[in-house]
Amino acid sequence: MATGDKKSPGSGKKESPLKGKKVLITAGPTREHLDPVRFISNPSSGKMGYALARACLSRGARVTLISGPVALTPPPGLRTVRVESALQMFKAARAAFSGCDVFIASAAVSDYRPARASKSKIKKDSPGGRFLRLTLNPDILQKLSRAKGGRLLVGFAAETGSVLENARGKLRNKKLDLMVANRVGRKGTGFGSDFNQVTLLWPSGKAETLKRMAKERVAGRVADEIEKLLK
Amino acid sequence: MATGDKKSPGSGKKESPLKGKKVLITAGPTREHLDPVRFISNPSSGKMGYALARACLSRGARVTLISGPVALTPPPGLRTVRVESALQMFKAARAAFSGCDVFIASAAVSDYRPARASKSKIKKDSPGGRFLRLTLNPDILQKLSRAKGGRLLVGFAAETGSVLENARGKLRNKKLDLMVANRVGRKGTGFGSDFNQVTLLWPSGKAETLKRMAKERVAGRVADEIEKLLK
Repeated sequence: MATGDKKSPGSGKKESPLKGKKVLITAGPTREHLDPVRFISNPSSGKMGYALARACLSRGARVTLISGPVALTPPPGLRTVRVESALQMFKAARAAFSGCDVFIASAAVSDYRPARASKSKIKKDSPGGRFLRLTLNPDILQKLSRAKGGRLLVGFAAETGSVLENARGKLRNKKLDLMVANRVGRKGTGFGSDFNQVTLLWPSGKAETLKRMAKERVAGRVADEIEKLLK
Repeated sequence: MATGDKKSPGSGKKESPLKGKKVLITAGPTREHLDPVRFISNPSSGKMGYALARACLSRGARVTLISGPVALTPPPGLRTVRVESALQMFKAARAAFSGCDVFIASAAVSDYRPARASKSKIKKDSPGGRFLRLTLNPDILQKLSRAKGGRLLVGFAAETGSVLENARGKLRNKKLDLMVANRVGRKGTGFGSDFNQVTLLWPSGKAETLKRMAKERVAGRVADEIEKLLK
C-alpha cells in the first residue's frame, strides 16, 4: 500500500511497513570534553532526529532514541538513551544495533575528540593549554554497517562543499539504503533551525532535491521512503 | 528601604535602587569555531543570566542582555544582542559598557579560540586536522574593569577546585563589587541545571555560601545584593 508523499506524517494507515519494526535513531550533537567545562561540539539541536522519532512512532514503530545533549523532550512511548560523547554514543548504538530493523543515524557525531581530557578545569595560564591534540572518533555508522545484515541503514551528511559528491561517497562506504544530505550554512535551514533543505540519495544513483520545509515534514518524507524500502 | 532576602524576586517596592538603572548582562556560552560546523564551547544554558535579566527588569532596571547561543527566549522589555563568539561578545559588551550603571558578567566565555578557523568543513582525512592551535580570548570583564569608574561590577566564577581561592583572585583582579562562585560538576546544580549552589563573595573578604536553590531565587538574591550596593 502506498502512503504517498503528500500525506502528513502520522496519517499513514495501520498497515505501515514500519509497524512493529524496531527503529534505532541517533540524534543531536556529541560533546568531546577537554576538561570538565570545555568541549568540542557542533550546533546540532537534535530537532531532525526527534522529528524522525515522532514520525516512526506515529507509524507504529518501536523506537530507541540515542540522544546527545539537547534542549528537547523526547516524545512519550519510546526508549531514550542519553549520552554525551561520541564514544558513549557508539557504545549505546552498538548495544542496540543487533536488535534493530532500521538504523537512522541523524546525530552530528564529533569526528574528533581531545586526545587527553583533564579532570580539573585547565587554568588559563597553564602551560601547554595552547595546543590541543585531537584523536579520531569511531565512525559509528561505518563501523556498524560492517554487520549490516538485513538492516535498513539511513545516513545524514552535513557538508559545506561538494555536498552531493561527499554524500555519495558516504552512501557507498557505509552501505546505506538512503542518504539525507544538506548544505551547512544555508540561512534558515539545517543546524538549529526548524527547517531543512535536503537532497535524498539512493544507492542506485537516484537523487531528489526537496524544497525547504519544516523538519517535521522532512522526517515524514524520510519515513515514507523507509516504508517504501521496507516493502 | 530594605528589600529583605526572603522576598521573592519582583516583589520589591517601587523604590528599588535598581529602578531606572542601566544594567548590562552577559549570558550563555560562547562558541569558538574551528570550521563552519565544529566549535569549542561549554555547557552553559544561559538560564542564570536570563533569570538575572528578569530579576533586574522586575525591579525597574533598563536591561541590555548580550546572549551567546542558547535555547531560551529573552523576556520582553529588554534589549537583546545575540552573539556567538567571545570576540563578538567582547565587542558588544564594550559598546554597551560605557552607558551602563551595573555590569553583570554571567556568561561562560570561552577562554580560548582556535588560532585559525577554516571556511569549509575540515575533512576527517585532512592532514593537519589532528592538532588544534589555540589562542587566548580577551577576558571581557577584566578588560572592561579598567574603565570601571562608578560602575558596579558583578562577576561569576565556575571552578572545579580551590573554588573560593580562585574566585577571590578574580574578584580582586577584576575590581568586582560582588562575585558569585560555584563548583562545577556538583550534581543537580550549575551548568544546564535549573538550580545552583553558589557562594557570594565581597571585596571586604566577607563570604556567604547559599544553599542549593532555583536559579530564579539565586538571581533574586543577587539582585537584592546589587540593590544594597547601589544604595
